[in-house]
Amino acid sequence: MPHTYIERIGSHVGEQVTIKGWLHNRRSSGKIHFLVVRDGTGFIQVVMGKSDVGEEVFRRADHLGQETSLIVTGIVRADARAPGGYELTASNLDVVGVAHDYPITPKEHGVDYLMDRRHLWIRAERQAAILRVRHEVINAVRDFFNADGFILADTPIFTPAACEGTTTLFPVPYFEDTTAYLTQSGQLYNEANAMALGKVYCFGPTFRAEKSKTRRHLTEFWMVEPEMAYADLGDVILLAERLVSAVVARVLDRRATELKVLERDTSKLDHVHPPFPRLHYDEAAKILIEKGRPFEVGGDLGGTDETVLSEQFDRPVCVTHYPAAVKAFYMKPDPEQTDRALCVDVLAPEGYGEIIGGGQRLDDYELLVRRINEHNLPPEAFEWYLDLRRYGTVPHGGFGMGIERAVAWICGLEHVRETIPYPRMLYRLYP
Amino acid sequence: MPHTYIERIGSHVGEQVTIKGWLHNRRSSGKIHFLVVRDGTGFIQVVMGKSDVGEEVFRRADHLGQETSLIVTGIVRADARAPGGYELTASNLDVVGVAHDYPITPKEHGVDYLMDRRHLWIRAERQAAILRVRHEVINAVRDFFNADGFILADTPIFTPAACEGTTTLFPVPYFEDTTAYLTQSGQLYNEANAMALGKVYCFGPTFRAEKSKTRRHLTEFWMVEPEMAYADLGDVILLAERLVSAVVARVLDRRATELKVLERDTSKLDHVHPPFPRLHYDEAAKILIEKGRPFEVGGDLGGTDETVLSEQFDRPVCVTHYPAAVKAFYMKPDPEQTDRALCVDVLAPEGYGEIIGGGQRLDDYELLVRRINEHNLPPEAFEWYLDLRRYGTVPHGGFGMGIERAVAWICGLEHVRETIPYPRMLYRLYP
Repeated sequence: MPHTYIERIGSHVGEQVTIKGWLHNRRSSGKIHFLVVRDGTGFIQVVMGKSDVGEEVFRRADHLGQETSLIVTGIVRADARAPGGYELTASNLDVVGVAHDYPITPKEHGVDYLMDRRHLWIRAERQAAILRVRHEVINAVRDFFNADGFILADTPIFTPAACEGTTTLFPVPYFEDTTAYLTQSGQLYNEANAMALGKVYCFGPTFRAEKSKTRRHLTEFWMVEPEMAYADLGDVILLAERLVSAVVARVLDRRATELKVLERDTSKLDHVHPPFPRLHYDEAAKILIEKGRPFEVGGDLGGTDETVLSEQFDRPVCVTHYPAAVKAFYMKPDPEQTDRALCVDVLAPEGYGEIIGGGQRLDDYELLVRRINEHNLPPEAFEWYLDLRRYGTVPHGGFGMGIERAVAWICGLEHVRETIPYPRMLYRLYP
Repeated sequence: MPHTYIERIGSHVGEQVTIKGWLHNRRSSGKIHFLVVRDGTGFIQVVMGKSDVGEEVFRRADHLGQETSLIVTGIVRADARAPGGYELTASNLDVVGVAHDYPITPKEHGVDYLMDRRHLWIRAERQAAILRVRHEVINAVRDFFNADGFILADTPIFTPAACEGTTTLFPVPYFEDTTAYLTQSGQLYNEANAMALGKVYCFGPTFRAEKSKTRRHLTEFWMVEPEMAYADLGDVILLAERLVSAVVARVLDRRATELKVLERDTSKLDHVHPPFPRLHYDEAAKILIEKGRPFEVGGDLGGTDETVLSEQFDRPVCVTHYPAAVKAFYMKPDPEQTDRALCVDVLAPEGYGEIIGGGQRLDDYELLVRRINEHNLPPEAFEWYLDLRRYGTVPHGGFGMGIERAVAWICGLEHVRETIPYPRMLYRLYP
């Protein structure tokens, strides 16, 4: 009997198929077992009548524990009342591996309890749905850049120096008394790659040794970072708008089932089309003060500031021209207002805060040297980076988008910890 | 004037276009400059006649150094003699950023010299071609798995314990006296993910603190690892064959230009179609002994053994049923020969050695506990992994494919160090 995945069961109505999965739920009424089976691609109700399968097979299903693995053969029936629209009328059932006292039951469990059992928790309908949305977001991002002529160029995880200060770096003993630092951003390498390949992106894990315990932070998170040679801030903003819109549209299109499981109000995502509203930092500051935030002009936006701002709009908002002093050393200053950076942060709506940060890079050799000194960065570590300004410098720019924050927003989650299979946090390194 | 990328110049013959790039090469003959310009997507010869552009513009190009960044406007002409098939007859040229004494000239440089300048070396035609093949390989892999119903589920980089012994692990001080280890494989987590999502893959950087300096080793390398629930060794081999064949076919189809730059003899890749020859370990041992290798039956294959074996075939060869003793603790023993593992290594032809290693996993709880003890692994670190056998265990399997080795083989390179933008090795952490 050919093995069929539940997600494709609709093309086998009236046919006999075999599914291989796990028992999600069971109830029995005398001579019928109702088994909800999951196989990783979906859930289906199996109806097993004693008269159809015979006494012996029927008895096999009498005491099956949740998450018992099993193989069921039966006829697919369309049934509008069934979740998913189909049912299986069983003709046989084989138990593959038993399960007793599965620790995650339909009752409520605390988050720590579930996180300790993350390897099992991901079997839950809601968690599996989030991971499928994550899969879709990542593939939407990659397809977007590939179709647009970007070349994937991986930047190193082991780096010899910090990109943006050292306080939140993870040092790793390398060989012979050398220390490597885990990357916080592929940014600097991306710039070199863009000079070689035109338009590039990197997409990998990045690390922050942050002791903060907020709903937006992980110590290990995935980031996509595009970088374009011969591009200015305007190009960067256009790219960010197009990317975010494409990703949201793709998830709405292909993961409607999952968003429904998550009870996501997708009407909130329908507005995510370019152009996004743009706010100069000064306008943003004005709104924050009007809204009663204790905001100090000249400073960076805090998490709550971002939340307040993003709540003003029905789609992501681009905040530009932050004070150069609060941004990284490699940002290009606005020639018309040199204390401002040609930068953009994209804040997701519904209070999700920054999902993208980027801008135009400093392409002037002398000014870059000055900035490296002002930031007390070790100049020798940036010799190679300065070469990009020595040999055929060009205007260029790009951004980084954090995948977990984007997934949290699109799924409508409280905390980023559910957006990745095995979240790593201050007190979480297991499983 | 709209900006055109060189790779799309063929659709603008007879039109005036602007290209933005860098000077790769220059020669002049009296009243004509011949400028070879690259823009990251390709190379084109710009022909600039003094009478066409006037004295002033012509003079700008008199002393341009290699890698000067420049913007050229001109008419596209088809010319069968030109490399790439097109030329640009310039009507204007603007210098964006000068470059003097670019350190990588057409003359020969040593590998260390070039690796110290890797951020510039990747601008070279050959290096850029390799990175484009890498991009294609990675996207071919992802498209293959996505089209086949696999879900991307990222496994953690920070792990609490070693997957296969501790001697080649990089420890990282985590918070409050905890130690994290950089992942060597997503394998164990993949198994949990497959039980949740059916068919999964992870794709990320992995780390080996290996002090060996061979042409096949990096300390940081990328690996794709698929894992399937309800699968046996046969399924794993079929998947590996299909994957490798699909990747090679895609590169041959889409990166012919790059393979030509690399002077790759592509006839060697034309045979890469399923089925691949299969060799039981015992047969492999027999061949090695016949070929005069000092091979000890019962031991693992060394690099040279792999080379000798793979040279016997015109396509990758699958070596199966290694002694269980030389394989990881999580391999399922062959029920008919319990000292053998249900495993497969795929060796690339032309002496490239192992590109894939995998097999069927041990799905029996008792036996797995015994193996963990035999391997002196800390049982508490594997409690979660044992849960996968406690709650609905199923036959399952998968493999890992190293991207850099696959790219080295497909490109026909001597050493894996050129297959990644910033290789990390024993003595190489910069740039």
